[in-house]
Amino acid sequence: MPKMIRVNMSELSVAYQDLPEKYGNLAGRALTSTVICDEVPADCHPLGPNNKVVIAPGIVTGTSAPTSSRISVGAKSPLTGGIKEANAGSRFPCQMARMGIRAIVIEGQPKEKGYWALKVTMDGATLEPADEFVGKGLYATAPLIYQKYGDKVGFMTVGTSGEHKMSMAGVCFNDTEGRPSRFAGRGGLGAVIGSKGLKLIVLDDEGAPGVPIANKELFEAGRKKMIDALMEHAITKPKGALNSYGTAVLINILNEAGGLPTRNFSAGTFEGAAKISGEALFEGNKQRLGKELYNHACSPGCIIRCSNTWHNADGTEMVSCQEYESIWAFGANCGIDSLDATGKLIWLCNDIGLDTIEAGDAVAVAMEAGLLKFGDAPGAVKLLEEIHKGSPLGHIIGNGAEAIGKTYGVVRVPTVKGQGMPAYEPRAVKGIGVTYATSTMGADHTSGYTIAPEILGVSGKVDALDPAGKGELSRNFQASTAFIDSSGHCLFIAFAILDIPSGFQGLIEECCGVLGTQWSANDVIAYGMDVMRKERAFNEAAGMGKHHDRLPEFMKYEQLPPHNGVFDVPDEVLDSVYGGL
Amino acid sequence: MPKMIRVNMSELSVAYQDLPEKYGNLAGRALTSTVICDEVPADCHPLGPNNKVVIAPGIVTGTSAPTSSRISVGAKSPLTGGIKEANAGSRFPCQMARMGIRAIVIEGQPKEKGYWALKVTMDGATLEPADEFVGKGLYATAPLIYQKYGDKVGFMTVGTSGEHKMSMAGVCFNDTEGRPSRFAGRGGLGAVIGSKGLKLIVLDDEGAPGVPIANKELFEAGRKKMIDALMEHAITKPKGALNSYGTAVLINILNEAGGLPTRNFSAGTFEGAAKISGEALFEGNKQRLGKELYNHACSPGCIIRCSNTWHNADGTEMVSCQEYESIWAFGANCGIDSLDATGKLIWLCNDIGLDTIEAGDAVAVAMEAGLLKFGDAPGAVKLLEEIHKGSPLGHIIGNGAEAIGKTYGVVRVPTVKGQGMPAYEPRAVKGIGVTYATSTMGADHTSGYTIAPEILGVSGKVDALDPAGKGELSRNFQASTAFIDSSGHCLFIAFAILDIPSGFQGLIEECCGVLGTQWSANDVIAYGMDVMRKERAFNEAAGMGKHHDRLPEFMKYEQLPPHNGVFDVPDEVLDSVYGGL
Repeated sequence: MPKMIRVNMSELSVAYQDLPEKYGNLAGRALTSTVICDEVPADCHPLGPNNKVVIAPGIVTGTSAPTSSRISVGAKSPLTGGIKEANAGSRFPCQMARMGIRAIVIEGQPKEKGYWALKVTMDGATLEPADEFVGKGLYATAPLIYQKYGDKVGFMTVGTSGEHKMSMAGVCFNDTEGRPSRFAGRGGLGAVIGSKGLKLIVLDDEGAPGVPIANKELFEAGRKKMIDALMEHAITKPKGALNSYGTAVLINILNEAGGLPTRNFSAGTFEGAAKISGEALFEGNKQRLGKELYNHACSPGCIIRCSNTWHNADGTEMVSCQEYESIWAFGANCGIDSLDATGKLIWLCNDIGLDTIEAGDAVAVAMEAGLLKFGDAPGAVKLLEEIHKGSPLGHIIGNGAEAIGKTYGVVRVPTVKGQGMPAYEPRAVKGIGVTYATSTMGADHTSGYTIAPEILGVSGKVDALDPAGKGELSRNFQASTAFIDSSGHCLFIAFAILDIPSGFQGLIEECCGVLGTQWSANDVIAYGMDVMRKERAFNEAAGMGKHHDRLPEFMKYEQLPPHNGVFDVPDEVLDSVYGGL
Repeated sequence: MPKMIRVNMSELSVAYQDLPEKYGNLAGRALTSTVICDEVPADCHPLGPNNKVVIAPGIVTGTSAPTSSRISVGAKSPLTGGIKEANAGSRFPCQMARMGIRAIVIEGQPKEKGYWALKVTMDGATLEPADEFVGKGLYATAPLIYQKYGDKVGFMTVGTSGEHKMSMAGVCFNDTEGRPSRFAGRGGLGAVIGSKGLKLIVLDDEGAPGVPIANKELFEAGRKKMIDALMEHAITKPKGALNSYGTAVLINILNEAGGLPTRNFSAGTFEGAAKISGEALFEGNKQRLGKELYNHACSPGCIIRCSNTWHNADGTEMVSCQEYESIWAFGANCGIDSLDATGKLIWLCNDIGLDTIEAGDAVAVAMEAGLLKFGDAPGAVKLLEEIHKGSPLGHIIGNGAEAIGKTYGVVRVPTVKGQGMPAYEPRAVKGIGVTYATSTMGADHTSGYTIAPEILGVSGKVDALDPAGKGELSRNFQASTAFIDSSGHCLFIAFAILDIPSGFQGLIEECCGVLGTQWSANDVIAYGMDVMRKERAFNEAAGMGKHHDRLPEFMKYEQLPPHNGVFDVPDEVLDSVYGGL
């Protein structure tokens, strides 16, 4: 019988329970969002005793399905004030799934300050004092965790930003090689965990029974189709775009499209783009290592293997991973054209436990506010160090782009529902603007990645600059994404399965194989829409209506070079996205 | 023909226009809110080019009606994100009204940084550079203004907090004796003015024709009834409660009722209340001056005369005015039991241009966050000085209670719609809680002062602790208040006219006399409800719904000593307040 673990931080107690039958087919995002809708009062304070954190691996996580070791973390977000799901790939999800634990629910809040670690083995779960891990950078903390609990454990932790309850605190997981480098980054869920006095969860899956599979034949058939699609598609195949350049392959592409937000969303192209591109990263590593380096897997069983490392001039490792979003956030968005600089900043984000997107957005708004100049990489480093220290300036930056904008009276603040925008300019890529505006998550590319057709020509090519048809496009992407986020697969499978129909069929068969269901393609889209509907209802009960489904005002009157367009998707189209559910 | 002045800060131009006919009977709050609804896009950024500031004296302002030199300042608020009207009594309103100017509308935004002064005489209005007044405390600025423009001018200005575009920046007016001490304080309207590069408006009313009165006989009859009522009522008469003790007379009363918010709304009584009471203020002055001191008028023609001064031990003046709200904000709410300490803090608020309520709430939340201890008066002084300096910590505090709470992850933050609560505890005085929750202004006692019946027994006595009937009570008070705020009278006339029916009739006759209308009591309530309806519609278009008409969550689960109650007015009752309009 699959289990849930309830961790009551008010009473410092832990209890196992059977997964309620009604949650039988729910996993990943579908499960975290459903439990939150069922148990968290929408009007609660995100950092108060009535919020809950729900952690759940996906449907096929822990099986041999490729690229499926993803975990969803959910709560009411202190950044957006709405429901939040953020997910990450790491060791942790497949361990948790193999141990038969479908969800961990963290509730309550200790009266006294202090930090605890939740240790979960096949013998049970216990809370133990964790003060020894507090106040440190995560690169210093990780070895202490391995020393105490063994180096095979999967862990989830928060950095000093989470201890400070800052709204850009992400949730950190260790990667396949033990780095504290994979984040369920967005929405400040690290602050919610910090507010509960929980510093750490460690999993030791020795003796775990593995994930039961209801229909092995169907699962195997699906898995094979999925593997074939991933191995075939130009973006996901070995030595393909992602394996060679990582997600940073997008820097040059977006720059050419005029959709690479530059200097706090004041332009769509960056003159230094080539220097911070995936190609430059590949060449730089080659030069510094004397050989070509292809990327590695962030989590067990991934065959896309897109996680890069960046090296110092002497060939030692500086940081993993320089993602597209992270390079952009500190690069083009801050006017910084050096991979050594972005690498240092990303390392700091990992160390402090920050969402790199929100951190880059916040630094850029600070630049706009005049606290430092665009292009000032050492200044950006100093700002992030303030977050770790918990100084007043650190607290401002650590609460994200909206907070720094509000604190300094800045008008050009690229946020929706309080969350900073990712690396795609809505005035140059209209569909992603619809996703930013309407997503239940605030400005979030991963919740409806219309970049696939608008920029990459995946699943056909649509005109990025044309506002027409973008409401429906975004809704369809949002629905399929909500299902993928529940399946346990990394979203990057989408490139392959959108272009290769058998891959999509494989996804469905894998899930049906595990659960013993008989879903059609329509069923899984309906599953995704059901997740969207629940999340939307939570947000409405938390006070969000259609007026929150809007981009910031400046994008409607400031023309963006080089295309000199404004965001012109009509409000009625934005309203139709969830209105049409 | 009555005029409006339009000040276009994008083009640095000024234009007179006739007051549009449709605005004929509108003045004060009714006019500011109507112009904002008509001209300001509800979704605009409050500090961006599309917001407007509207300044309007009331219907009878500038006439001989007693206690009527009030001015309304309106805009979209950077603090609440909704519509805002704040009003003040001073020289300025009657001068403006007598000059035939029914409204000044400030629009646009200069591209380059810089500050301007608007000078208005009977010869016209001009914009001139005002950089000489920038960056200074207002007590140092006022003499410079009189030196340049003459000491009879009425002025409106913003302090360094407004220059920094902080959300607790109020709008400062000079009192009858020239002090920069009367504020349209709430909602951060000083930041909006600062964002427009406007530092100062000076009025010189030499040669002003005065306010035309359509029906002099009716006006005089009304005026006499109003004067009689004010001179008779125990609260408003000479040497009555307000004239003797100022608004600070309420400290002991609220403390006894268990409704004096103490140490950031964690208790309803303050052990040091007697030391900061109106009675202590009167006795302290008597001791230091060697004679009894009754209060003075903040504005020409006021016969209530409630504005106090507080003196140093050597008999020199420290500050005017120690209002109830201001003493409470830094006193009970911060655990400080000294009128010398509150006096110093209020002086600083005047000097920097701060809303004392929001400032006190912010300091108390900072105390809750652990930045300083409750009771630490020197620490509070240092915090306010940071605002003037514009340091990061100053920027956090300067943006109000919600900002400091959010920045430091504090859960007990006493705000509604982002605005800090005034000096009445909703868990001990339920009706005022309904007003805080539902007012279009955010937490604001003046928008529906149910304290009158709940605590003072004015217009009958109702049980403050009983939630029953409080929806209707608040709605009625909100409607009549919206009319009084439009009439130009100080809200304090309400004590007299609620208890003395002929006083209320006098109010109506004064207004009808000026405008030539024939209003009944129902008509003026309908007038007030119309204002509420417009403001509500603006807020809804700005994204606020019924979920924003709620008190903070902690007031629903934290019991407040000494009555140990929570806020238990049902949500449906809150929804009925505007639902029933």
